[in-house]
Amino acid sequence: MTAPAFTEDDRHFMRVALSLSKRGLGNVWPNPAVGCVLVSPDGVAVGRGHTQPGGRPHAERVALDMAGSLAKGATAYVTLEPCSHFGKSPPCASGLIDAGVSRVVSALEDPDARVSGRGHQMLRDAGINVDVGLLGDDARRLNEGFLSRVERHRPFVTLKLASTLDARSATARGESQWITGTEARAHGHLLRASHDAILVGASTVVADDPTLTCRLAGREHQSPVRVILDRTGAVPASAKLVQTANEVPTWLVVSDDHFAELSEKFKETSVKVIAAGCADDHLNLHDVMRKLADLGLTRILVESGGNLAAGLLKADVVDRVIHFVAPAMIGDDGKAMVASLGVKQLSDMPRFERVSVREIGEDIVVTYDNKTD
Amino acid sequence: MTAPAFTEDDRHFMRVALSLSKRGLGNVWPNPAVGCVLVSPDGVAVGRGHTQPGGRPHAERVALDMAGSLAKGATAYVTLEPCSHFGKSPPCASGLIDAGVSRVVSALEDPDARVSGRGHQMLRDAGINVDVGLLGDDARRLNEGFLSRVERHRPFVTLKLASTLDARSATARGESQWITGTEARAHGHLLRASHDAILVGASTVVADDPTLTCRLAGREHQSPVRVILDRTGAVPASAKLVQTANEVPTWLVVSDDHFAELSEKFKETSVKVIAAGCADDHLNLHDVMRKLADLGLTRILVESGGNLAAGLLKADVVDRVIHFVAPAMIGDDGKAMVASLGVKQLSDMPRFERVSVREIGEDIVVTYDNKTD
Repeated sequence: MTAPAFTEDDRHFMRVALSLSKRGLGNVWPNPAVGCVLVSPDGVAVGRGHTQPGGRPHAERVALDMAGSLAKGATAYVTLEPCSHFGKSPPCASGLIDAGVSRVVSALEDPDARVSGRGHQMLRDAGINVDVGLLGDDARRLNEGFLSRVERHRPFVTLKLASTLDARSATARGESQWITGTEARAHGHLLRASHDAILVGASTVVADDPTLTCRLAGREHQSPVRVILDRTGAVPASAKLVQTANEVPTWLVVSDDHFAELSEKFKETSVKVIAAGCADDHLNLHDVMRKLADLGLTRILVESGGNLAAGLLKADVVDRVIHFVAPAMIGDDGKAMVASLGVKQLSDMPRFERVSVREIGEDIVVTYDNKTD
Repeated sequence: MTAPAFTEDDRHFMRVALSLSKRGLGNVWPNPAVGCVLVSPDGVAVGRGHTQPGGRPHAERVALDMAGSLAKGATAYVTLEPCSHFGKSPPCASGLIDAGVSRVVSALEDPDARVSGRGHQMLRDAGINVDVGLLGDDARRLNEGFLSRVERHRPFVTLKLASTLDARSATARGESQWITGTEARAHGHLLRASHDAILVGASTVVADDPTLTCRLAGREHQSPVRVILDRTGAVPASAKLVQTANEVPTWLVVSDDHFAELSEKFKETSVKVIAAGCADDHLNLHDVMRKLADLGLTRILVESGGNLAAGLLKADVVDRVIHFVAPAMIGDDGKAMVASLGVKQLSDMPRFERVSVREIGEDIVVTYDNKTD
């Protein structure tokens, strides 16, 4: 089979579909964030859709409903293979067939065992032309959270760091508000809105009593799940995250040993207590990630202090680092952005690949991907 | 007096002159690095020059010699006021007058007390049109070393830092070769070539025994003076910097108390021993900078470890920070790029203004200027 030949129009409409799909990031888990554009034979976009909050309806359904009878003979551009299984709603592949589309251009095969090629096959069996792989790398990147959960059985983990240029996140006394400027902090809230959950350690909750919500105008409803790693139950019941757990989900990950006791402690609250394994007096971070994937999380933003950041780096579960750098210095007695990593020689260093560097107000933000992944 | 109206042609030729002037940076001290372009009335550049290594001949002389009789009636673009005093050679203002130029466009008045407006006046007295101030900010920036020495009686100090993204310059055991990539290191050598001197502390010499020369092909002859701050004489006579002091100047700054003893110790070598005052068992860095300015240095590149970097920052003698950031981490047990600064609260932080951020191979390089200057 030769690779399908895509036209400039194909590329254009797939880019539109990818752009639409982004709107679902952070609010469709455990579903993938998909985008779909329906284009009539004369080149007019007659339907557009993206996966809706909560994961339903799917992008294809939204686009088909918008197009109505104009979907007949149209080309559907989808950022992920249409689903083929009957779940809460009929499969999208059937929807496209029933609407009479003539061609489907798909960016990526869905690795989910319930789909995995069967969606494309169902369309082909119905006589529809199916071309797969257009802008597949972009689609993979957009769905890295969903793909990570399906393929690696853990969420995609982004470590957000904010520091001075000498990598201090606070003074020796713990003062950290504010090292970065207003633009960088607003960008930080935008990051929250595109993630399923924010992860912090209990020490951050005890020290700062944060709310970890998205406080951008118009995005308040997009506050992600707050996940606290709290092996022994150091978080007090009076913490804001506990008190507001009925408004924004708060999950507390504790050790197996403390599960019964802490479930009891928080039973009158809306906090969800989750048990994970331990090793050497630390939560086993691989087990933690597995548990969070079990619960449906695909994209996690870590906003922890230096100890948990180091723990996640040592466990090699950090997929991306987003570093906000302020044009100031605190010096060596300030709090280190990343605690000891046990690096004995340079060849042991965790290494990354720079993805982008941007100026943001008076600060810069540098994005790195894990090089070993 | 109204501000002179400059044309696009004026701006173009001044940019050429500024670009030419850069070639002198690092090799004309204590003179300013000047550029000059002579343009005939029909718009042809008939002479170009920049201050030659060692500071003589001056840019105007070089351009006039190139133009010969074509300088008659020409416009001279100069990045700094032409000199008016008889020194090792006749003043450039006389040269321009004698050659019959009709107009001089100058970027900046020379703050040197021996010139300071008198060069421009001499030209005007001879009937030449003189327009001052074109691209003056760029000219100030290019001559910030010369201007710092004249106006503040200290060199312009650039602190070069190279670290991981968590601001570690070496592992706990001191391994630092190599954290940054080949492109960043080549850029570091280029920085050396454009500075009058490199400054390090004795501990760097004892630990690494560096040569601190410019090792770029074609630039080897541009190795700057090596200045070592060595209050008590910790640098051994066997150090490479001492052994090669006959090829590239090596200056050792010691405390007044140790001056006699250390002058004796190094009398058989080519090392120049310089005395500076002390305060609290540290060299007084303001006095050090004054002494280095006395000796003619205008642009200093600091390539020290974290302690001297912190000392210079605390003394507020750092004008610029150039930070090379590698996409890797060492963690909190690595060597801090900058030692303790005694910052008690965020409002005490040394703050900078980002001038530029560039991608350089796998690393980035961020340039910051001291915000308080």
